[in-house]
Amino acid sequence: MPQHIKLAEYLFTRLRQIGVQAIHGVPGDFNLTLLDYVEPTGLAWIGNCNELNAGYAADGYARIKGIGALITTFGVGELSAINAIAGAYAERAAVVHIVGTPPRASQDSRSCVHHTFNDGDYRRFGLMAAHVTVAQTSLRDPRTSPEQIDEVLRQCLLHSRPVYIEVPVDLVSAMVSSEKLSSKIEIPRTEPNGDSDAAIDQVLEKLHAAKQPIILVDGEIRPLRIVDEVQKFIETTKLPTWTTSFAKGLLDETQPNMHGIYRGTFDDLPVKEFVDKADLVLCFGPHFSSTNSYAFSSIPKTEVTIIVADTEVRVGTKVFRDVPAPLALSQLLQKLDSSKPLQHATYQSPPQASPISFSSLPKDNLITQKHLWPLLSGFLRRGDILLAETGTAGYGARTMTVPPQTRFFLPVTWLSIGYMLPATQGAALAAQELANSKEYHGISTPRTILFIGDGSFQMTAQELSTIIREDLNVIVFLLNNGGYTIERCIHGLKQAYNDVAQWRYLEAPSFFGADKGAFTASAKNWGELDLVLKDNALGNGKGLRMVEVFMEKEDAPPGILTTMMDKQKSLVENGA
Amino acid sequence: MPQHIKLAEYLFTRLRQIGVQAIHGVPGDFNLTLLDYVEPTGLAWIGNCNELNAGYAADGYARIKGIGALITTFGVGELSAINAIAGAYAERAAVVHIVGTPPRASQDSRSCVHHTFNDGDYRRFGLMAAHVTVAQTSLRDPRTSPEQIDEVLRQCLLHSRPVYIEVPVDLVSAMVSSEKLSSKIEIPRTEPNGDSDAAIDQVLEKLHAAKQPIILVDGEIRPLRIVDEVQKFIETTKLPTWTTSFAKGLLDETQPNMHGIYRGTFDDLPVKEFVDKADLVLCFGPHFSSTNSYAFSSIPKTEVTIIVADTEVRVGTKVFRDVPAPLALSQLLQKLDSSKPLQHATYQSPPQASPISFSSLPKDNLITQKHLWPLLSGFLRRGDILLAETGTAGYGARTMTVPPQTRFFLPVTWLSIGYMLPATQGAALAAQELANSKEYHGISTPRTILFIGDGSFQMTAQELSTIIREDLNVIVFLLNNGGYTIERCIHGLKQAYNDVAQWRYLEAPSFFGADKGAFTASAKNWGELDLVLKDNALGNGKGLRMVEVFMEKEDAPPGILTTMMDKQKSLVENGA
Repeated sequence: MPQHIKLAEYLFTRLRQIGVQAIHGVPGDFNLTLLDYVEPTGLAWIGNCNELNAGYAADGYARIKGIGALITTFGVGELSAINAIAGAYAERAAVVHIVGTPPRASQDSRSCVHHTFNDGDYRRFGLMAAHVTVAQTSLRDPRTSPEQIDEVLRQCLLHSRPVYIEVPVDLVSAMVSSEKLSSKIEIPRTEPNGDSDAAIDQVLEKLHAAKQPIILVDGEIRPLRIVDEVQKFIETTKLPTWTTSFAKGLLDETQPNMHGIYRGTFDDLPVKEFVDKADLVLCFGPHFSSTNSYAFSSIPKTEVTIIVADTEVRVGTKVFRDVPAPLALSQLLQKLDSSKPLQHATYQSPPQASPISFSSLPKDNLITQKHLWPLLSGFLRRGDILLAETGTAGYGARTMTVPPQTRFFLPVTWLSIGYMLPATQGAALAAQELANSKEYHGISTPRTILFIGDGSFQMTAQELSTIIREDLNVIVFLLNNGGYTIERCIHGLKQAYNDVAQWRYLEAPSFFGADKGAFTASAKNWGELDLVLKDNALGNGKGLRMVEVFMEKEDAPPGILTTMMDKQKSLVENGA
Repeated sequence: MPQHIKLAEYLFTRLRQIGVQAIHGVPGDFNLTLLDYVEPTGLAWIGNCNELNAGYAADGYARIKGIGALITTFGVGELSAINAIAGAYAERAAVVHIVGTPPRASQDSRSCVHHTFNDGDYRRFGLMAAHVTVAQTSLRDPRTSPEQIDEVLRQCLLHSRPVYIEVPVDLVSAMVSSEKLSSKIEIPRTEPNGDSDAAIDQVLEKLHAAKQPIILVDGEIRPLRIVDEVQKFIETTKLPTWTTSFAKGLLDETQPNMHGIYRGTFDDLPVKEFVDKADLVLCFGPHFSSTNSYAFSSIPKTEVTIIVADTEVRVGTKVFRDVPAPLALSQLLQKLDSSKPLQHATYQSPPQASPISFSSLPKDNLITQKHLWPLLSGFLRRGDILLAETGTAGYGARTMTVPPQTRFFLPVTWLSIGYMLPATQGAALAAQELANSKEYHGISTPRTILFIGDGSFQMTAQELSTIIREDLNVIVFLLNNGGYTIERCIHGLKQAYNDVAQWRYLEAPSFFGADKGAFTASAKNWGELDLVLKDNALGNGKGLRMVEVFMEKEDAPPGILTTMMDKQKSLVENGA
């Protein structure tokens, strides 16, 4: 490595070092020269159809690989992507947003170039980005640019949240020192210390004292990078364990002490009672948004709860600060080994009705949400990446039982419909990269499966073309139920504003450029669905495959949505 | 009108009063109850496929009708639209952005509801919106809400720039006083005064003293609401007149003293010399961004220039403040009548080569940018609304001669590709509304014609489905030249990042739900293009019609783009 390299080479080399292999984005005149360096630095360039989709794709990629990146152009490009960046902030995906900006001379002279407001103010977009990113840097000087880049990338990894880097077009090929590249960007590590000892000792003391301790795992264990440790803790202690939707798929659900998603007041009575009686809830990676906590009803009572969060352990109301989650877990596992075995109550789930099968359903009957999801469970396999869009898909899909080593994207907090389709592209690409370097559970061509309603599909449909162009292994189940059914559950059951235009959805692969032989199928009843799911070309084919599942407008998966919809139906019946 | 009405009724009644007949947007759980009042208040609801498109559509609608509106939901919806709002700010479209927000109780308690960052902070989106809107209001109290609404709508009209209104879901049906509705929202008027007299007298003195005065009209005459007055001034004085791209279509180009767009250093030598020699340039509604001013080269020299801007008249470096443009124009026209006739040089354009015709072009030859646009001119008719997307389309289309009473959307300053397609939907709807109330030049079904490249089309393609669903009278010329040709002119002539996926574009109408008989055609050579343009079903059909015009990757309209592309070609030839 020469002592001095071009700034773009520095930036992209750093991205490669931390795990980025592909950059998403859209060309624009202030980023074109930057793009010249993407492929020569060994990265792939994924040109998306628009910037919002590129942001969503980079987020999906980041949740699988731990880091993702996109490049947009000043003003128009970056603002189009900003909702995706906000989502990555809310749900913690480490996305590096690189923006190609006008030359420093234009900025300094307040020149009224295009993509500005014609008023000489170049700082507004950076100020807007600061609301939705965890760190920002505006490169202006080649002498300090390497440090600036390193620092925001470190923040990105540490917090698993998006960061923002402005690269003026005239700095792209400026020479910078390559010295720092020889040392890796590291997330700071904390050694065991008095505080962490005190915290973990108290956790263990409480655990041993408890009669009915349980574990509640939330989705921030992914950004906190403690998934494997939490898995080990669950297997070692065998404590009854529930997760949130955000954590679904991160852990091995087939373990006998794993009892699925805890749904608070919407859960089955035996579960609710057992959880209510727990005298200790050990909660890892909490993320208590309304959606993820079933309208806050699954949040455990503070007085019986131990929380392992970003940088602190909370035992009831007592806070042990500066005990980062990875340290807490490593000490917990270590001290657990040497402590006496835990005594605890076990949760016996009541005998389950035998699972529904196609043979028990009349072939000609319409497909219903109630039975669709259990039947789709049979289609899943180890290593699948599953994405279920906000809407009935997101609520239905979470009830599926998933094999080990799957990953699951569900509506959690940001709930921006349209996210899941481009995220599918990003996640599928990330999984394929991992598989190509034999880091994907021994699977060579992972499948990525999207469950999405018609309204959501319309938001970002064009990104199917990137899935096609990149030849990604993707299966789309499009639920055609005539509009925004989830909104009908909330309000406006019969209102026209919850309808969407009727598209000919299965023409999508052809329109977006797939080979004319691309697999498409529709299912209007159980018989057709059965045949489609058994079709080898669907389950074991290659590239994009698409199934349109027809469902009724006013059908929702049992649970919180049907409760809400029933309320709407009675309002309509009463003429409200 | 009852003394008290619901807040939503107040808001929508006000919108109707100022000219909104249709609201664009996307439903979301924090705006559903608001949507209940749209149609009952006599407004149409146009559900777009996504919020960015809704924003673009509302902007296109506003540029035709003078005002437009969209409704999105908190966080996810509004941020998706923010780039469109920014464009409306940069190029001055009066767009009212209404955001349905969580109930006040949630906001006050900092509840971690969905569509937040799960941190209790509800103010970030409003702070972001403040960067791209001219006025903002957060409704919190039914007692003050009517005044708050009125004030931001007044600012919206006054500045012809977007405004932002937050409506908490629990305020939608709160009762408010309807008292103010009986008086209209008025843009403040200024009466003639000493300052305006002094300004206009000086303008007239300069005009009479000048030997070679000319007029340069820019596009802010639309937001300043002085189009008719400027037209009258040009017809009265008969001074040689040029426009910018931003002003194209606003004035009657067929007048003998109208000489087209002034292209600065890129213009023909006789024009350049005449303009350079002008001893007075009277400039109305300046908007001197780089793109609109041909890299600043068409901006007249300050010492010979009189500027009529928003609220001031500038004579050379002398500024007469607080002389609003409408006042300046009315006084100018009035004082002009009573003053002696202007003496001035006239511009004689050199004899033009006879216009190109299909008969002079070999039928089998590929279609070129050089001849396409003059030939398309023959397709245009009075009252057409023309939109040409940023890219070769925008540069080529501006060279077309347009009949009177057309309107033209061209790349000006914001240049966000993807804008023009949804803007086509909004503009077509606005024109149809005007035609329905017999306010559209006696034309009953105006045509809206979009010229767009393949790369831009991919950004926002789904909004064709809204054009189809609303049965709007739209013709799309899709230029298929294999990617972002305008970027190739700038940089990366041969780079793969300037390619886009190959779609089967003419399948779009069917995919997006049009009748199977919707008009589509492709043209690969002059012979095919000739036939298509003569097809009555294209020119006089109804609904969406689409023509795919195939062109070469490295072909651009003569002028600034070919100059740039030639530079790129020589770089490639020299191995750079």
